[in-house]
Amino acid sequence: MTTQATPGPLLPSAAAATALRPARAAAVTGGFWSRRRAVNAEASIPQGPGLLEAAGNLHNLRVAAGAHAGEFRGQYPFVDSDVYKWLEAACWRLSELGPGEGGPTARRLEGDVERIIALIAAAQRPDGYLNTWFQLGKGEGRFLDLRWGHELYCAGHLIQAGIAHHRATGRDALLAVACRFADLLVAVFGADAPERIDGIPGHPEIETALVELFRETGERRYLDLAGLLVDRRGHGLLGGEGYFQDRVPLREARSVEGHAVRQLYLLAGAADVAAETGDRSLLAAGERLWEAMAATKTHLTGGLGAHHDDESFGDPHELPTERAYCETCAAVASVHWNWRLALLTGRARYADLAERTLYNALIAGVSLDGHSWLYVNPLQVRDGHADPGGDKTIRRTRWFRCACCPPNVMRLLAALPHYLASTDGAGLQLHQYATGLFAGECSRGPLVVSANTDFPWQGHVRIVVQEAPSRAEWTLSLRIPHWCARYVVRVGREVVPATARAGWLRLRRAWQVGDQVDLELDLTPRLTCADPRVDAVRGCVAIERGPLVYCLEEADHPGGGLDRLVLNTEADLVDRYRPDLLGGVTVITASGWRRPRAGAKNWWPYRTAQGASRGARRTPAGAPGEPVTLTAVPYYAWANRTDGAMRVWLPTA
Amino acid sequence: MTTQATPGPLLPSAAAATALRPARAAAVTGGFWSRRRAVNAEASIPQGPGLLEAAGNLHNLRVAAGAHAGEFRGQYPFVDSDVYKWLEAACWRLSELGPGEGGPTARRLEGDVERIIALIAAAQRPDGYLNTWFQLGKGEGRFLDLRWGHELYCAGHLIQAGIAHHRATGRDALLAVACRFADLLVAVFGADAPERIDGIPGHPEIETALVELFRETGERRYLDLAGLLVDRRGHGLLGGEGYFQDRVPLREARSVEGHAVRQLYLLAGAADVAAETGDRSLLAAGERLWEAMAATKTHLTGGLGAHHDDESFGDPHELPTERAYCETCAAVASVHWNWRLALLTGRARYADLAERTLYNALIAGVSLDGHSWLYVNPLQVRDGHADPGGDKTIRRTRWFRCACCPPNVMRLLAALPHYLASTDGAGLQLHQYATGLFAGECSRGPLVVSANTDFPWQGHVRIVVQEAPSRAEWTLSLRIPHWCARYVVRVGREVVPATARAGWLRLRRAWQVGDQVDLELDLTPRLTCADPRVDAVRGCVAIERGPLVYCLEEADHPGGGLDRLVLNTEADLVDRYRPDLLGGVTVITASGWRRPRAGAKNWWPYRTAQGASRGARRTPAGAPGEPVTLTAVPYYAWANRTDGAMRVWLPTA
Repeated sequence: MTTQATPGPLLPSAAAATALRPARAAAVTGGFWSRRRAVNAEASIPQGPGLLEAAGNLHNLRVAAGAHAGEFRGQYPFVDSDVYKWLEAACWRLSELGPGEGGPTARRLEGDVERIIALIAAAQRPDGYLNTWFQLGKGEGRFLDLRWGHELYCAGHLIQAGIAHHRATGRDALLAVACRFADLLVAVFGADAPERIDGIPGHPEIETALVELFRETGERRYLDLAGLLVDRRGHGLLGGEGYFQDRVPLREARSVEGHAVRQLYLLAGAADVAAETGDRSLLAAGERLWEAMAATKTHLTGGLGAHHDDESFGDPHELPTERAYCETCAAVASVHWNWRLALLTGRARYADLAERTLYNALIAGVSLDGHSWLYVNPLQVRDGHADPGGDKTIRRTRWFRCACCPPNVMRLLAALPHYLASTDGAGLQLHQYATGLFAGECSRGPLVVSANTDFPWQGHVRIVVQEAPSRAEWTLSLRIPHWCARYVVRVGREVVPATARAGWLRLRRAWQVGDQVDLELDLTPRLTCADPRVDAVRGCVAIERGPLVYCLEEADHPGGGLDRLVLNTEADLVDRYRPDLLGGVTVITASGWRRPRAGAKNWWPYRTAQGASRGARRTPAGAPGEPVTLTAVPYYAWANRTDGAMRVWLPTA
Repeated sequence: MTTQATPGPLLPSAAAATALRPARAAAVTGGFWSRRRAVNAEASIPQGPGLLEAAGNLHNLRVAAGAHAGEFRGQYPFVDSDVYKWLEAACWRLSELGPGEGGPTARRLEGDVERIIALIAAAQRPDGYLNTWFQLGKGEGRFLDLRWGHELYCAGHLIQAGIAHHRATGRDALLAVACRFADLLVAVFGADAPERIDGIPGHPEIETALVELFRETGERRYLDLAGLLVDRRGHGLLGGEGYFQDRVPLREARSVEGHAVRQLYLLAGAADVAAETGDRSLLAAGERLWEAMAATKTHLTGGLGAHHDDESFGDPHELPTERAYCETCAAVASVHWNWRLALLTGRARYADLAERTLYNALIAGVSLDGHSWLYVNPLQVRDGHADPGGDKTIRRTRWFRCACCPPNVMRLLAALPHYLASTDGAGLQLHQYATGLFAGECSRGPLVVSANTDFPWQGHVRIVVQEAPSRAEWTLSLRIPHWCARYVVRVGREVVPATARAGWLRLRRAWQVGDQVDLELDLTPRLTCADPRVDAVRGCVAIERGPLVYCLEEADHPGGGLDRLVLNTEADLVDRYRPDLLGGVTVITASGWRRPRAGAKNWWPYRTAQGASRGARRTPAGAPGEPVTLTAVPYYAWANRTDGAMRVWLPTA
């Protein structure tokens, strides 16, 4: 554990201007995330090759490679990226298996990875170009449609897959493919390109990939191109639309806007550029945009994106419930970006938002069995919902025509340990609580701690020092989540009167191997309300417990009528762990009422507030309806039983 | 007045199974609607030919006619319909001018109409086909793309224009074009067509047009085809999607669904078929769908359509404010459909919804000067709104790439008198109150009444009998609007102790010429709240006065912060007529508070309701903010001064 670094997607260079660095090694060995990652590794990822075959993605590569003839299959110019994201996921999965570990499933996975990489290498043009949509004759020609062509977007995912393969296996076949394409991009889009295209990609993603390729290869030209693409944006090269984040330069933007995933990938890339160049103004712009996003455009679940139309952010405080878009990919991208800002600044708030996103918006996107997916993640499904079907369905779906989300979740969960802890030369920081081993450095040598917890069901986390230089002082930093009003920390048997500052509880000592820290986070269920400008949820509260947002589902409320429920805010919230339910969850019961059905005579749903008018509906006096027990389950687990109504925000009167 | 019938868009046959028939003659001669119609006639309609020329619509017809060469201009296969709708508007406008009336503007209009009709006739193929998109080589070929081709939709508007031209001028040039196309459609889609296409149009509209063509020509085959197209729908011929109302047959549908304008045009057509065939089950289905729509899918303004995505209805009670779609065309279509149901059944509720739609959702779609338009009609524009531009802008716009709405409003306003009054052989019914003359029949002969009113600013309406058979009893029916809690009616100087039943106040007497009825409707401003299932406006009220919905605009609240306003529901609403403002409107002032801006430290907009948590925002004790005077203006007049925030629904706590 101590000697071998865990490969991960982000490895800042030695000179990077980050406050923190990813933990030298990190492993999740039990508990909540271990179970979710096992499903990812054993159910979701192994299905990839079959699904990519059925959807035509691999067919397209074979045709591009000249292995056989055929037409392009699929509807979009970015379908190659599904293959790359799946490869990245598979590589992170393989990276955590020792030689011979994982049995036949792992051997088959290894074989699939190498087979598909060979196919990709064969499909690449001699000059490095690779995009089957254009190679198979769709579209107008390479780099002619930067708005919608997605060539640089796909290149970005190819590069990330190449890096993952290299870091996980030490092999460089895919990395070489990636470098060839990246070199072509430098030759076409770079500052010194002889016949330069002053272009930028319609969908960011290449930026963060190029920075990581610089980190992996040491080739400065990749970093330079990334910086160039960030700063070329916002000057109208794509037509000046907010959708593309091309209305104003990122450094001048006042809020996040346009297509949410595009915006977030761009911001992740800009953070990477800032980390490697030390560009403080670029970092400041990112932090400012994060504040605007967190305070005015983030759903309670951490979900991002208010409009189905254009998959975009809305106006400030425009956070609808049933029409929350909250694309699963936006949750993935948000975790990516938050992690980068956490490393750059060391601030706890980025881990706060990442935690909320991981436990809610993100894992809601995959079913508990790992077999089906949500692209759109609403906070409410109404009684009598008529589902539109297609990719914008809010029913779990086996795969999508636009299948960006499933392999995105796969790669994040496969690399999850990477996003949990950091080190800074003075000690170790635990950003998220999971059972596992986390390694860092202090000036005197390597550090390793273990963590054991049943979080988020229990608030107790036990941390034990597993390795530390003797008699050297270093700091163990524990994040106190922003939802946590009360906590207790013990070292050995003694309560430590320490207080978190700016979200971090810092414990500095000459830690000895075997030293034990017990952190107790209060998980009492709570009712949460929103800024009054969030019109969508006025007069409502949500039930939360620890990092988990809860929801009511029709499955727990026979007879339905979820839109007629009212929560009694005076009554107790009672939490109980139910090992039999939804793979084991803590359920919260509350009490309230169900309003009566409206009479058939009321054809108009509005009435005079202070008087009466013909045809108006009267509110019954006294209790608003029949008493009912409300049963709330974690939002992430919704839609795993039957279809039906669901709601996070509950009316209180 | 009494001898000459006013031409209008709807003329049920003598055998039609309607409870009421349109007034034999109707004219608006003063007051609110007279002013709006003058702007329509003098500003909006005269601009049509220039706008249609600039947008390429007329060019397309010239190319189709072989008058010159060129490519199709415009982006959509339905642009011909803009020409037809404009022609219909121009014809209704011309129909109300006596010979020589209207001056040079009218002469120019007449010339434009005849010139464009000649162009249309020249563009028609010998077999009757006419659609410039397909004639100019776009698309796959005629009737091959019924989902999106819009050939039958355009044919419907052509037919309606042909009927309007014939009824307005007595000329049959355009009607002949329409009949040729309709005959082709019967030959292709009719039950007895030799090589029948079992198809239906992606966008309904042809159905209502074919029924009216039957009425105009007496040719039963047009009615038969209309009935066939209504009943073929819902069996998957278009793929079975709710968007196209093709998921279930209309007779079995439980609620309105899919694209709002498609749904409403279909329902108008079905009502027409029911009227001419006496099909009670088809009428019952329409009434049932109306109830589901009115009670669960109608915005306070009468606006329809909850989703920008697909321009569609949402789920029941899903009625967002800033993302209300409320396409202007849907308001037009709703008035069309409500009028048909009012005639079929005689029920007042259809005029209630039509009134609400006319005064709010519909005329909000055109600027006060008649020069610019809204396609989308939200009920809220947030502080800091970032407008998307394009056709889905919520800023007033000169014309749209998809310019369906402007000529639709033009034709409705030009034909407005037609929608105000009816007759049934036993008397006259005033559905809407406007200054003008309205003629009907009783068994003993013709009836004419005049109405004089400053409605909706004043609640007084004076009705004077202008013509009536002597010593014959007949019934004057006055609709008491559903918003009206108090009213008084006098005949001569005597208060009549009559009570409205089901929305109608019936006054049966042997009326004499000169008899005078004074109706006083109470217009006290009121606060309105919504069914608690309308989540979007929980904890809010709207200000209404008579049929008018009010809104707050940034223009009246310097310093903005509309999203931070709170209404004091205990304070008085004060109304005052302001002749200087917005063309003359009654303004309502109220009082309330403006919440303080949130501090910059609050990065998370949610907080624990019953306790405190780190980083959470506190509500200040006592008053929610600084006291402010709120100034409300009629919703229809919004966005006529400066861009800025607007809201209809006001938080109360």
